[in-house]
Amino acid sequence: MSFKIRAARKEEDCKDISRMILELAVYVKMPDQVKISHEELERDGFCQNPFFECLVAEVPEEHKSKEGFTVVGYAFYIYTYSSWKGRTIYLDDLYVMPEFRGRGIGKGLLSSVAEVGKQKQCVRLQLSVLDWNTPSRDFYAAKGAQDLTVSEGLHFIRFDGQSLDNLANEAPKD
Amino acid sequence: MSFKIRAARKEEDCKDISRMILELAVYVKMPDQVKISHEELERDGFCQNPFFECLVAEVPEEHKSKEGFTVVGYAFYIYTYSSWKGRTIYLDDLYVMPEFRGRGIGKGLLSSVAEVGKQKQCVRLQLSVLDWNTPSRDFYAAKGAQDLTVSEGLHFIRFDGQSLDNLANEAPKD
Repeated sequence: MSFKIRAARKEEDCKDISRMILELAVYVKMPDQVKISHEELERDGFCQNPFFECLVAEVPEEHKSKEGFTVVGYAFYIYTYSSWKGRTIYLDDLYVMPEFRGRGIGKGLLSSVAEVGKQKQCVRLQLSVLDWNTPSRDFYAAKGAQDLTVSEGLHFIRFDGQSLDNLANEAPKD
Repeated sequence: MSFKIRAARKEEDCKDISRMILELAVYVKMPDQVKISHEELERDGFCQNPFFECLVAEVPEEHKSKEGFTVVGYAFYIYTYSSWKGRTIYLDDLYVMPEFRGRGIGKGLLSSVAEVGKQKQCVRLQLSVLDWNTPSRDFYAAKGAQDLTVSEGLHFIRFDGQSLDNLANEAPKD
């Protein structure tokens, strides 16, 4: 089956992206964590200095999904920066709808993000994956990725909600 | 001892930041990983749409370090974005020179980054820490952070060098 990977477009794609963000959250067992709407995606991804970029995978009309979708996968990424290396890229989400897996679409999206990163002089592509998600961990390892949590013992730390508020309230005043 | 936390300035601070980036890399046992120069910091952090922001901690002249430095700590952070939550902030580096530790400077820098994040509507502050770095892990935990690697099993994945090149070269062509 043929598919096409292209940059997401504001008017056409944000509802599909929003739908698939939720599908991915269901897959990783955290559907209640999604707080973003397609209107916010339109606002933050398609402004003067966008907060994120997104690629979508599209199949021809004759191969649309059971529910009638032709946009069947997406890669949501941001530009980041390392104090050691300079420009880097972070892949926040990579998703392909279940009925379209095993056809190289995920690989195509990942490679395309890497290509965009190289074009923008990014020297690293990073992402995170959950321990139990063996298919994804194996997929990234097979493509040559390092698992820094395994090799270097790198831990992910987060402040949010009350802990972030408390921290901000303790900032020294002039 | 008094100290002041302020936004880094292009002309005055990039050499100090560059020096401390290397000191931190020595502390985490990866000094050969630093590839960035103070000229690159000046270019990328102080342009129209800066790639990063930095706060510095400054002590009065009479309390300068043995080597004569008054800028004795820094927090290097970037604005990020989550497909689930929207705007977030990532603290790439937090460092205080050894002779100035234990005086609340690290806490002041961390809180100030949280405050900046809240001002910019960021709903999360994230960072990473190495497994063996117990003082830092304890410090973040004491401030209310979650360790997502421990609680959720989150792994950090990286493509760089040859693995990134290979990936980019496999991107599907139109």
